Amino acid sequence: MDVLFHTEDPQPGPWVAALEAALPEGRVHRWSEGAVFPACGYAVCWKPPAGFFAGQGGLKAIMNIGAGADAIVGNPHLPAGVPVIRLDDAGMAAQMQEYVAACALGYLCRFDAYRAQQARRHWERMTPRGREHFPVGIMGLGVLGKSVALYLRGLGFPVRGWSRGPKRLDGVACFAGDAQLDDFLSGTMLLVCLLPLTAQTRGILNRANLAKLPRGACLVNIARGGHLVEDDLLDLLDAGQLAGATLDVFPHEPLAPASRLWTHDRVAVTPHASAQTLVDVAMAQIAGKIRALERGETVAGRIDPVRGY
Amino acid sequence: MDVLFHTEDPQPGPWVAALEAALPEGRVHRWSEGAVFPACGYAVCWKPPAGFFAGQGGLKAIMNIGAGADAIVGNPHLPAGVPVIRLDDAGMAAQMQEYVAACALGYLCRFDAYRAQQARRHWERMTPRGREHFPVGIMGLGVLGKSVALYLRGLGFPVRGWSRGPKRLDGVACFAGDAQLDDFLSGTMLLVCLLPLTAQTRGILNRANLAKLPRGACLVNIARGGHLVEDDLLDLLDAGQLAGATLDVFPHEPLAPASRLWTHDRVAVTPHASAQTLVDVAMAQIAGKIRALERGETVAGRIDPVRGY
Repeated sequence: MDVLFHTEDPQPGPWVAALEAALPEGRVHRWSEGAVFPACGYAVCWKPPAGFFAGQGGLKAIMNIGAGADAIVGNPHLPAGVPVIRLDDAGMAAQMQEYVAACALGYLCRFDAYRAQQARRHWERMTPRGREHFPVGIMGLGVLGKSVALYLRGLGFPVRGWSRGPKRLDGVACFAGDAQLDDFLSGTMLLVCLLPLTAQTRGILNRANLAKLPRGACLVNIARGGHLVEDDLLDLLDAGQLAGATLDVFPHEPLAPASRLWTHDRVAVTPHASAQTLVDVAMAQIAGKIRALERGETVAGRIDPVRGY
Repeated sequence: MDVLFHTEDPQPGPWVAALEAALPEGRVHRWSEGAVFPACGYAVCWKPPAGFFAGQGGLKAIMNIGAGADAIVGNPHLPAGVPVIRLDDAGMAAQMQEYVAACALGYLCRFDAYRAQQARRHWERMTPRGREHFPVGIMGLGVLGKSVALYLRGLGFPVRGWSRGPKRLDGVACFAGDAQLDDFLSGTMLLVCLLPLTAQTRGILNRANLAKLPRGACLVNIARGGHLVEDDLLDLLDAGQLAGATLDVFPHEPLAPASRLWTHDRVAVTPHASAQTLVDVAMAQIAGKIRALERGETVAGRIDPVRGY
């Protein structure tokens, strides 16, 4: 079977090698602009360019090398009716647990404020808060959101979750929909965004919503840059309404050198590193899903094109 | 009963009030240099000055407002034969869990390295390591060390412990004594010092021992400044042998403005804040122990003057 492949990673070699090893029955074609490829049964891609799908009228499925599929669903040349399948979790959940827990504990212990004091050689203790008084709120309770919520609960934080439709999660206070968003936000000291990026969630981290967090709350965005209205965040940080933000995702990556986010003293920037797809795990998972589809089975992770996730 | 009281806290009022509330049968005398006090049955103190014990020949016990009692045991005027009793845990264990876990997860996720990149507006992902490959080693398995070890184990880190004599702790690889120190260190990516400060442990975090950690390991010292040989640490950081250090304790506190630790880019300084004694919890615990002693019972936390802890 022929498989069309593209990744944005500047070093695609290991990805191709891993896919070939995991799917020996496939012929993997590395896509490039202007070249001609045979009609493929499957596409395996991360952030495919506009021309990627040209001439591919026979695709049986499009495999997204990642969890969030907005870069595929938003492609204007996406062939209609072809299933888009995302990764379930290729080592990403564990990394996100670690990233969010590091933020939650770091903010709880005021490591950011102590770092600012250190820069001034200033020695002053701040009153400890206790994790039981530092509720973490997770927006988005998909595979990754649930996993992060349960890990944080295990650390002893009160955990609340918010999702579009009602969900249940052991030991997690669950809120749903617009009607319960205010209640969710007003009791959240650390807001973690793990939502899919859709028309409904774009810009959801805006002034109106962020201002509903208690004074001194913090933000972690590890979903997509499009969720956040940067100017609103910076205003709330400067006003002292929010105490800090850790941002791993941005509308344009790499983050432009001119961005104010690099230099703001209450913003931590990481280079979309909170959940790196592990090459071997991801390619083995995709190969397994392709084989299941070939056998006529259904597979997990199919994107709903209307919802966008 | 008369109780002699002293704390180094510049605001002793809340401590005295809490002790009086917890021990209504006691008359609490706030010690001051040069003043005369009745002979007291109990002393309740944190870092008592040299003159504190003068004229107090009738003490039945000395209650230390803290876990580490080195500042009492090292007092040259300490009355011989009077039991010194330390706090078991007045909210300190939970704070230390949070502090160490914040360090462990922060170093694991390379937040320190990403912060250095952010200062240069540099965007570059580092390969994730996974907590299962990032063993944390706790030196000192007393009340606090055990508590931190079990919390870290619960987070999914491999945890090892080292203590003077052999100990057992579920799910923790335990090492003991000089003979097993090298084995302990060679498999530890994050070394956490929670030892009591004694003649045997002073300077234990020196070049010879720290160099036995794997290259790229990190250090957290939340015990006493006297455990660490600062110049050795700075040399190993500059040589790249150690990747970072988080220090909460120093031989002289507050840390002097001239200290190189304030400005070293791989050293995080916090102001002895990793485990702040919670006033009400501590005073209630001390009152309870005084009452138990009055009833002729034995109490936990008695310091062995020979061991020093």
